[in-house]
Amino acid sequence: MELTPEQQAEINSARDAQHDTRRPTVSELEDVLFQPIPVLDHGFVRVIDYMGDDAAVVQAARVSYGKGTKKVSDDAGLINYLLRHRHTTPFEMCEIKYHIKLPIFIARQWIRHRTASVNEYSARYSVLDREFYIPAEDQLAAQSNSNRQGRGDLLRGAEAQNVMQLLREDAQTTYDHYVEMLNEDENGNVIDESREGLARELARMNLTLNTYTQWYWKVDLHNLLHFLSLRADTHAQYEIRVYADAMLETVKRWCPVTFQAFMDYRVGCLTLSGKALEVVKQLLAGGNTTQEESGMSKREWRELMVSLGRPAD
Amino acid sequence: MELTPEQQAEINSARDAQHDTRRPTVSELEDVLFQPIPVLDHGFVRVIDYMGDDAAVVQAARVSYGKGTKKVSDDAGLINYLLRHRHTTPFEMCEIKYHIKLPIFIARQWIRHRTASVNEYSARYSVLDREFYIPAEDQLAAQSNSNRQGRGDLLRGAEAQNVMQLLREDAQTTYDHYVEMLNEDENGNVIDESREGLARELARMNLTLNTYTQWYWKVDLHNLLHFLSLRADTHAQYEIRVYADAMLETVKRWCPVTFQAFMDYRVGCLTLSGKALEVVKQLLAGGNTTQEESGMSKREWRELMVSLGRPAD
Amino acid sequence: MELTPEQQAEINSARDAQHDTRRPTVSELEDVLFQPIPVLDHGFVRVIDYMGDDAAVVQAARVSYGKGTKKVSDDAGLINYLLRHRHTTPFEMCEIKYHIKLPIFIARQWIRHRTASVNEYSARYSVLDREFYIPAEDQLAAQSNSNRQGRGDLLRGAEAQNVMQLLREDAQTTYDHYVEMLNEDENGNVIDESREGLARELARMNLTLNTYTQWYWKVDLHNLLHFLSLRADTHAQYEIRVYADAMLETVKRWCPVTFQAFMDYRVGCLTLSGKALEVVKQLLAGGNTTQEESGMSKREWRELMVSLGRPAD
Amino acid sequence: MELTPEQQAEINSARDAQHDTRRPTVSELEDVLFQPIPVLDHGFVRVIDYMGDDAAVVQAARVSYGKGTKKVSDDAGLINYLLRHRHTTPFEMCEIKYHIKLPIFIARQWIRHRTASVNEYSARYSVLDREFYIPAEDQLAAQSNSNRQGRGDLLRGAEAQNVMQLLREDAQTTYDHYVEMLNEDENGNVIDESREGLARELARMNLTLNTYTQWYWKVDLHNLLHFLSLRADTHAQYEIRVYADAMLETVKRWCPVTFQAFMDYRVGCLTLSGKALEVVKQLLAGGNTTQEESGMSKREWRELMVSLGRPAD
Repeated sequence: MELTPEQQAEINSARDAQHDTRRPTVSELEDVLFQPIPVLDHGFVRVIDYMGDDAAVVQAARVSYGKGTKKVSDDAGLINYLLRHRHTTPFEMCEIKYHIKLPIFIARQWIRHRTASVNEYSARYSVLDREFYIPAEDQLAAQSNSNRQGRGDLLRGAEAQNVMQLLREDAQTTYDHYVEMLNEDENGNVIDESREGLARELARMNLTLNTYTQWYWKVDLHNLLHFLSLRADTHAQYEIRVYADAMLETVKRWCPVTFQAFMDYRVGCLTLSGKALEVVKQLLAGGNTTQEESGMSKREWRELMVSLGRPAD
Repeated sequence: MELTPEQQAEINSARDAQHDTRRPTVSELEDVLFQPIPVLDHGFVRVIDYMGDDAAVVQAARVSYGKGTKKVSDDAGLINYLLRHRHTTPFEMCEIKYHIKLPIFIARQWIRHRTASVNEYSARYSVLDREFYIPAEDQLAAQSNSNRQGRGDLLRGAEAQNVMQLLREDAQTTYDHYVEMLNEDENGNVIDESREGLARELARMNLTLNTYTQWYWKVDLHNLLHFLSLRADTHAQYEIRVYADAMLETVKRWCPVTFQAFMDYRVGCLTLSGKALEVVKQLLAGGNTTQEESGMSKREWRELMVSLGRPAD
Repeated sequence: MELTPEQQAEINSARDAQHDTRRPTVSELEDVLFQPIPVLDHGFVRVIDYMGDDAAVVQAARVSYGKGTKKVSDDAGLINYLLRHRHTTPFEMCEIKYHIKLPIFIARQWIRHRTASVNEYSARYSVLDREFYIPAEDQLAAQSNSNRQGRGDLLRGAEAQNVMQLLREDAQTTYDHYVEMLNEDENGNVIDESREGLARELARMNLTLNTYTQWYWKVDLHNLLHFLSLRADTHAQYEIRVYADAMLETVKRWCPVTFQAFMDYRVGCLTLSGKALEVVKQLLAGGNTTQEESGMSKREWRELMVSLGRPAD
Repeated sequence: MELTPEQQAEINSARDAQHDTRRPTVSELEDVLFQPIPVLDHGFVRVIDYMGDDAAVVQAARVSYGKGTKKVSDDAGLINYLLRHRHTTPFEMCEIKYHIKLPIFIARQWIRHRTASVNEYSARYSVLDREFYIPAEDQLAAQSNSNRQGRGDLLRGAEAQNVMQLLREDAQTTYDHYVEMLNEDENGNVIDESREGLARELARMNLTLNTYTQWYWKVDLHNLLHFLSLRADTHAQYEIRVYADAMLETVKRWCPVTFQAFMDYRVGCLTLSGKALEVVKQLLAGGNTTQEESGMSKREWRELMVSLGRPAD
């Protein structure tokens, strides 16, 4: 990711501002405010604004439970309790706003999370930049044989080189033609006075799905954690996971107590179905049982055994 | 509304805090931060936190429209344009959190607005305070004859006095019995050691709907304006309108440009149906028309004529 | 619950209707369509309309996964997989509409679930019926000593009788005064021509929270299951749980495969935190560990041991 | 739009089904159930399922307003009233599910409407079809000079031909390379046994934004009307407006009374700001006024005069 001098100057100027506020303020997060965190080859995540902190979660829980929370000894204990019992509304009291640059095919996955506010750069109004996501060599993976939505081994040699070349060339060619059809270069200059230029809302359809777009994305802490639990997960596509990982670091700065509870009760957790719980109970009681007896499918059984650190058969 | 010395001390302490922040800060709103604005006899509204300002709306619009917004001369013009054309997403970029004390029957109207985050004091966990809404004399209105959801003239004399007495007595009596059933007074002391006390989650059902409750209510600017357009309206019940009016004042401090556009394009506006538009066109062209010719119902016609400042028949 | 002859006739008439449709139809659910299922003393739940079935969930999943779902042998396996991996959107493809009569204090809990459509009887427009929830004797529980939101032993003897009498009398008295203030009886007749009558939107504030209200409540299957997982749970208040239980029966009729998966993967499930998972692994490996070593709180440890069927210390 | 024989057989089979139901049924809509309505060159809209009808809107309104609605003489009058006063919740009681095939760049506009349920064909799991949107000649418009999001005159001659050729060639070329990178043709056959094939979740990024995708889209009537008021509007991009127009026809079949009210109070309506209302009042009173005096911007003044059928200056 490279910033133009203008962009860097704008960020520096925003970072230089200092205001007095009575609002709760988190200095760890202020340290990185406005600063782009590079993601992929041209993307970034940056925190633009935020509201609330761990104490706001606690405050909301205490208004709900009133005098009933007096007994909970400390804030960390209360936050753990809330996350563990899925009392989610207190986490809605914190809000964060990001500015994100990301490839369009990732934006399409992302936007399915509906409980956020979004303002995206519009190619109906303006010309998109000449920037495309091209995977790094160590991400150029073959289709997984066992998992229809996963990746297998890395491509190598001639096949890898060919893929790289196709991705690069097609993105450039379609972008060249986009500009040609618009009859307007990236700086807004008319190319050929004798032509009219295709409407922007039509010309954009010629771009490939790895073209970068950008948006403001604003979300509350509860819905952010839900997003991160799905997208910082190993089942998520690598190209969205790296964004989720970068955002997880910002949550760690912003609400460190909630972050720790999230790592314990969401990221590292395992949910046992009723049948799986029976299996665990039997094993703990010194008994034995088999996949057939458990009523679980082979796939579930295998996943359970792996999760419990036991041989899968 | 009266605050206990403890509550006042807590508010003063919060107001004394001063933090450095890089975030956009609105000093007009900071001036009233945490401060309760009295509403009705025991209620209040106070701003607890906020994020963003008029400039955040503009910033979001400019990322959407990109270079396309260069021509709009100023921010006020852009905000007017957004509100006028119902481009609502930029207004979602601002967020505000209130602490509100209000009667339960008003809370029940309020909660139908689903696009907000709420944490309410729970009478399952804690004992509610002995506070009820009793209308002021100048709000003790009779049922409207013409409008099933409206108020007519003020009640007077013996009828008014009787109503006042019934409201006061029933609230006190049911609250007394609530405490008696709980076997626990408002300070949490057991009343009669020989009794067990009814579960709080059951005892609360004996309270009347004018009992006060409280909650944190957090919402983005777009959804707040939608709420205010319905609840600061003359058709809204007085007891919710006074809350909306108090909040409208906070919006004026927070986002004065958006506030002004809201007053012009929402509060003072008139929507003409296709048929009503035809009537206006005919009248402007010097022609004449009647309710029968217009295809409008008598009620619509009357409302239109009143809105246009003309005789209704 | 008693229906008036008019209500019963209306239900019978609706049930007698027979239409031809090309839409997927679930005869098990049609059998109870429009029929009230009694809940509490005067409440009910009845299914008014529905859309989709188990096959609609499968159809939606198959459009998402395309040819990728060919390998999943059967629909039940696919639905299990979706629920297990929290792929929730296919369950949004089914919709159900209920007509529900319930006490106001339960309606207040219920309405916090925001992802549903609601039309409630309005006491601004109309007079509420003289119907209140009075707990049955076997539900008249004391406050729990160990759980601030729970119930303990049943109240007995004089205390129970006193509670019953207070609940009954206060509901009747406040309702009598409601009618008196309205100057309008339940049938809409004016009581005293010399009086005006208080506006309905004000008079309602005198009613107690156990007064019955009613609403249409429409929700998709995903959000319904989320509601049921919280409200058919043992931690839910009895008075809402009985509604959830009644609705769970309608889900069983409507989408039996989804119902079964829900029972296995939601109702009977146990989520282990990262720390709890470590404890289980150590125990399974024949080792031993203690609460102190685990890093878990005493409360969590105790809950875990109970869930695993082991002594809590 | 062409269907394969398999697709046509599946549709015919679904249409042949006949079930008995007690649910409200709309025969006008049943007539087109499952039937694809062609849109653009390869797209379609088809109704897959629905719930409710005009009577369900009325029923919901009557439970809200109770005996208060007795005076409204007929259902059409009530529906008009609801739409006019933006009482939107009764319209949420109806639900419809569409199957839609559409170009990706249109899907990206569409998905911003968050209050719907969506299941989209996933190119992580499956290979997309070789189908692209290529504008018809009468839609190949130049960029508007006056409106940054609009279209101007049609392109002609060599420029038009060049654009057509670029769009066609780039879509084919990038699709060819997509298949080459996948090493898997559209029927799932491996192309070259010596290669591994790029993961589907990566290869898809080479496709252009006019590639067709498809999804199930389920929405309630209120949110559908909101979508249609924005997307069946003349300001909407042609390529989404044609979908909205097709869906509007299905609303006309489904809920004809609501459809008519929507045309009167939404589509054909004009909203006057406070300032515009003052202008209209002055003109009606026989006075005169100018843009400068009105306080309106030139643009607003011009728009108002055009709407009122008057000369713009």
